[in-house]
Amino acid sequence: MNITTKLNIVPFVSVDSMMKLVLAIGIEQFLTELARYVEEDFLRWESFDKTARVASHSTEGVIELMPASDGKMYGFKYVNGHPKNMLEGLQTVTAFGVLAEVDSGYPVLLTEMTILTALRTAVTSALAAKYLAPKNARTMAIIGNGAQSEFQALAFKALLGIDRLRLYDIDSTASHKCAANLANMGFDITICASGQEAVEGAEIITTVTADKKYATILTDNMVGSGIHINAVGGDCPGKVELHRDILLRSDIFVEYPPQTRIEGEIQQLADDHPVTELWQVMAGKASGRKNSKQITLFDSVGFATEDFSALRYVYDQLPRTGFYEELDLLADPDEPRDLFGMLLRAKQAAS
Amino acid sequence: MNITTKLNIVPFVSVDSMMKLVLAIGIEQFLTELARYVEEDFLRWESFDKTARVASHSTEGVIELMPASDGKMYGFKYVNGHPKNMLEGLQTVTAFGVLAEVDSGYPVLLTEMTILTALRTAVTSALAAKYLAPKNARTMAIIGNGAQSEFQALAFKALLGIDRLRLYDIDSTASHKCAANLANMGFDITICASGQEAVEGAEIITTVTADKKYATILTDNMVGSGIHINAVGGDCPGKVELHRDILLRSDIFVEYPPQTRIEGEIQQLADDHPVTELWQVMAGKASGRKNSKQITLFDSVGFATEDFSALRYVYDQLPRTGFYEELDLLADPDEPRDLFGMLLRAKQAAS
Repeated sequence: MNITTKLNIVPFVSVDSMMKLVLAIGIEQFLTELARYVEEDFLRWESFDKTARVASHSTEGVIELMPASDGKMYGFKYVNGHPKNMLEGLQTVTAFGVLAEVDSGYPVLLTEMTILTALRTAVTSALAAKYLAPKNARTMAIIGNGAQSEFQALAFKALLGIDRLRLYDIDSTASHKCAANLANMGFDITICASGQEAVEGAEIITTVTADKKYATILTDNMVGSGIHINAVGGDCPGKVELHRDILLRSDIFVEYPPQTRIEGEIQQLADDHPVTELWQVMAGKASGRKNSKQITLFDSVGFATEDFSALRYVYDQLPRTGFYEELDLLADPDEPRDLFGMLLRAKQAAS
Repeated sequence: MNITTKLNIVPFVSVDSMMKLVLAIGIEQFLTELARYVEEDFLRWESFDKTARVASHSTEGVIELMPASDGKMYGFKYVNGHPKNMLEGLQTVTAFGVLAEVDSGYPVLLTEMTILTALRTAVTSALAAKYLAPKNARTMAIIGNGAQSEFQALAFKALLGIDRLRLYDIDSTASHKCAANLANMGFDITICASGQEAVEGAEIITTVTADKKYATILTDNMVGSGIHINAVGGDCPGKVELHRDILLRSDIFVEYPPQTRIEGEIQQLADDHPVTELWQVMAGKASGRKNSKQITLFDSVGFATEDFSALRYVYDQLPRTGFYEELDLLADPDEPRDLFGMLLRAKQAAS
């Protein structure tokens, strides 16, 4: 399906269009539908051309390109991670992405992905928890109540029915912001004074903090048996959230081991520490949660196939919703070999 | 310098804007100025964070991401190469690119790069020839008269004073197209019936064909002593233009050896065959042309720093020319941690 027949045009979903798209579909509906695309792509994991992201590190942060292809479509995301940005009124993470046809190499979609990344990260976390969290879990602690927190909460509600939240952030204004944003959305919300208090009674612990350093958001004594940990914030070298001892007591599930061993919580462990690939659990090739005592840990770092799924989903929504603009991105001479002639004719047209 | 103070906005140079920009500056002037940027960046080669491009190969072509950073700015280009596209009325190569600030990770420019790539490729070829071609060369053979040919001709005119062209293409309509486009631009043009005829009397031979296969555009007997060869078309695994014997008689100059050994003409040679890096010649650390008998070969594949230079140049032209649009690409909540709140407020604003 091509939205446009004009060869020079690439449909563009701006931030404004993305918000309209999400709101027109409904946030929980969007999360539910997106989860189907993400799961679908995890289930055909082996058919993807995969590569660890291409990162350019600097003192203040990282800029990454994350490509993936299923042989028919190709997608990539540009994403930065700059924890200090927040202090300057900027986003820690901004992103945009492109979907293209493999057969022609022509892009078919350019879209903002700052909002979309928050949605796909939340969806991937909730999907993992569907396979790993204790059955009938209702209570989730969220440690770190910044830009990602509400999306996590709503994805867990949409996919697992989580309706009790225990919020903690070192900056309590963040927790109050999160609670206010989620008011009247069907949650019972408790703002907690410490991480220790937040985890009390929670069956799922989500850590989603932003500091670029070895932080210990969770210490070993805070994690009881039977818990599922959704570790979202530790996602680049030198940035982890969990005490190593927790990892040693957990069964660890990851997206793409070559990337997670560099970026995830498991950078604290030996290179051959056993981990299970999430797609194998989804495909029934490996066990998820085996019993009610087990501590399961989804060491989420975010993988390119998830962005590919998100790009695919957004692309499929465009014809019916129409929330996009037409971007004159691709040179389209009348005769393909006459790129220079196009330039000359533009000159004649202007004179 | 930031063109806009609006945090959500990224300046966008469409195909139409790029044509206006090039025409407003003047093609030869644009090429001359761009050459200064490219040379400047070659001269500080060691300060770049360099990586071979990230390629996704398929039966019909390749999609590549080409990132580079000088520690202050970060740039990347998306580019495809699909030789069969031409038969379907599409460009063999299309491209776009992004420039971003390393300190914040925020993009500051999105631009078409199909036209810009043709310009920067031509500029790099002409720059290399400035150091490698015989002194006072005036005649260039161009074998392959497709989308890149006129740009090559004009860059060699602007930088070296080449004013005699000998054109050959297996499809003579391409040669006539090229000659017509370059009419009244100060060239003496001869359309030739064979590659052999084209190289007669030429001091520089440019090969810029598009087939994705081991083609032999130049055979050994066609290349006399003292010639400079500008081999542009051979730029991915399995795509070369020159007979191996020519390579063995030539002194070979390349952009970034780890990439050229995979993609360039030298993929036909042993991995340790001696080559000279172009930046070293420019910086006076290695010799270029040593005598009038020597065959010099610039095995051009196109490197990410050249795109970086092109992005930098275009970005610097925007304030004075104004040929760009404002793209709502980056989510900018009033409070950085309140991405979800931005979405909620968009809902309230709409209802």
